[in-house]
Amino acid sequence: MKTSTTPVDIQKAATSKIENTDFNNLAFGQVFTDHMMICDYKDGAWQTPKIQPYGPLEMDPSARVFHYGQAVFEGMKAFKDEEDQIWLFRPEDNFERINKSSERLAIPAFPKEFFFAGLEELLKLDKDWIKKGFGNSLYIRPFVIATEAGVSAAPAKEYKFMIICSPAQAYYSGEVRVKFSEEYSRAADGGVGFAKAAGNYAAQFYPTNLAKDEGFQQIIWTDANTHEYLEEAGTMNIFFRVGDKLITAPTSDRILDGVTRKSIIALAKEFNIDLEVRRVSVKEIVEAAKSGDLKEIFGSGTATVINPIVGFGHAGKKYDLPKLEDSYAGFFKDKLTKIQYNQAADKFNWRYQVK
Amino acid sequence: MKTSTTPVDIQKAATSKIENTDFNNLAFGQVFTDHMMICDYKDGAWQTPKIQPYGPLEMDPSARVFHYGQAVFEGMKAFKDEEDQIWLFRPEDNFERINKSSERLAIPAFPKEFFFAGLEELLKLDKDWIKKGFGNSLYIRPFVIATEAGVSAAPAKEYKFMIICSPAQAYYSGEVRVKFSEEYSRAADGGVGFAKAAGNYAAQFYPTNLAKDEGFQQIIWTDANTHEYLEEAGTMNIFFRVGDKLITAPTSDRILDGVTRKSIIALAKEFNIDLEVRRVSVKEIVEAAKSGDLKEIFGSGTATVINPIVGFGHAGKKYDLPKLEDSYAGFFKDKLTKIQYNQAADKFNWRYQVK
Ligand SMILES: Cc1ncc(COP(=O)(O)O)c(C=O)c1O
Ligand SMILES: Cc1ncc(COP(=O)(O)O)c(C=O)c1O
Repeated sequence: MKTSTTPVDIQKAATSKIENTDFNNLAFGQVFTDHMMICDYKDGAWQTPKIQPYGPLEMDPSARVFHYGQAVFEGMKAFKDEEDQIWLFRPEDNFERINKSSERLAIPAFPKEFFFAGLEELLKLDKDWIKKGFGNSLYIRPFVIATEAGVSAAPAKEYKFMIICSPAQAYYSGEVRVKFSEEYSRAADGGVGFAKAAGNYAAQFYPTNLAKDEGFQQIIWTDANTHEYLEEAGTMNIFFRVGDKLITAPTSDRILDGVTRKSIIALAKEFNIDLEVRRVSVKEIVEAAKSGDLKEIFGSGTATVINPIVGFGHAGKKYDLPKLEDSYAGFFKDKLTKIQYNQAADKFNWRYQVK
Repeated sequence: MKTSTTPVDIQKAATSKIENTDFNNLAFGQVFTDHMMICDYKDGAWQTPKIQPYGPLEMDPSARVFHYGQAVFEGMKAFKDEEDQIWLFRPEDNFERINKSSERLAIPAFPKEFFFAGLEELLKLDKDWIKKGFGNSLYIRPFVIATEAGVSAAPAKEYKFMIICSPAQAYYSGEVRVKFSEEYSRAADGGVGFAKAAGNYAAQFYPTNLAKDEGFQQIIWTDANTHEYLEEAGTMNIFFRVGDKLITAPTSDRILDGVTRKSIIALAKEFNIDLEVRRVSVKEIVEAAKSGDLKEIFGSGTATVINPIVGFGHAGKKYDLPKLEDSYAGFFKDKLTKIQYNQAADKFNWRYQVK
């Protein structure tokens, strides 16, 4: 990618907040780096990308995003290796996915050169915020919001494409128990479930609160029609290990095509792990739990990489999963993070250096 | 409603924009009055409602609403009668509905006293923006947005409840042809379709653009499972007249419980119009169109009141509706607007005076 041809207007922050940041006590997504990338869409075109000091936006109260939720986002990470080199993981996939999300939300596509030029300039400016060491990373949040003023329920003619960055430590969310959804749904056939559309996330908060009251941390969503098939969690795709076989649901217009998920699928092939991409029924997982064949459930996503699940609930019953020494979750997490941190060969060409 | 006990902090605008507003050329939802109502939620409580000059909000780029679409809204109207009295139409229903929407989006409920005190003070301050005359009104947009900074996918702890107002003329959207949705969906069972959740609206833009390319202005959404039953349009409930019988779909967790819809149902009973609230199949409507029994389709909603539909498309075929002298659409529009403008008796106690 040649980015030198795309101009980016850079306005540097007068001072840095980095000295006041405790990198050993980072809550996820709460602290942001010194700069942000903004690119405005108006008069039918994306304008020159700008990098500015991180700070508040001025928005008209009638801005479309507040009323009609015309907004999409992405989640990526930057890693620093022992030689202080900066790496992204499959960033083209995130770029393509945000435009897929945008298309479904009637938001104009963002140019690839702008994305990479803006992102790389931003990372170079804020490179001190990316800390070395396994588990440390910079969480990168590209997003697009409809900024045009006016409350008419139609696509906006003005948008902001932005990138903000937040330093992150290894993600440990405690023991995660999940509830298989029996009543609420995340996405409809023919809907926007496959897109990282802002509204998909708020829609999960209330059912998740109800699940929390029952002692679960997250929900595994089932298909809205029958609630018989397991699809994905709120911000993770889901894998089930029955015996030595790994199973995950196929992507569809209801399910996000996760970058971590497809990386695991590729690694499973490489390492001859038996993996089936097919519908996973609640029934088979409950039966496998009862018979002892269910060895693992884990989630996959950029923020958490791999998140092992210790138990699940369905139809008023709770099931515990065994604690394994040789878990697939641990295996894939090790393989993936070593590639991400430039500690292992990169067979699939997933790493992307920022320099 | 005694509002005198609820304090509202009022800061008046130094100047009014009203002189620069052309009330004979109003595009819907583009011009806003001099003031707005804002009430902040923080530290677990809604703070004192404030009325301020209409103007931009300062928002952190990581505010929840931008990333996770945690936002709901309402739509209501104020009318002025010949004696300059100001009237609302069933405002308690809008108040209750916004809290129902909020609950589903994990947003804290807004206190009724705050809603009515803030709204009434705002309308009194901006009363000159409500013009007399049939068709003129003030469109009122209450909404709630999650303002807390931080990109973690969980309910916010900070919100703004706001009311903004926009003067409106009689809504004429041209001839409206609708497409019966065959592929895309608006809402899932167990989802948020019944709520005025911001994300529901952006999700409709892309399929609506595709329908526009085929010559339709709007979509009538069908159930996501089978696409065999007609549900509602993007911002309107839908009525079908077959012979002299009126049919409309029952509300469900996919369909908004429209104030205009239920007012029509009440008026139909009063005037002995045969009305059935039941599932409406695509098949029966297509067959009725073919046999000539289908007399009318119309939408109902606050912005448009009643919107007659002149034709529809399904499975690649287009169907025209007859032009009627004695339409139910016209009948209900006349009855409803006369009540709204205080020109007819208010049997059902729907009017609410602001004084
Ligand atoms: C709904 C949903 N599913 C799955 C994922 C995991 O995707 P990825 O591995 O690309 O981060 C995410 C997070 O990005 C998500 O939001
Ligand atoms: C999805 C949807 N359906 C129906 C309606 C009509 O409801 P009401 O008559 O209360 O305005 C609206 C508009 O408010 C809407 O957004």
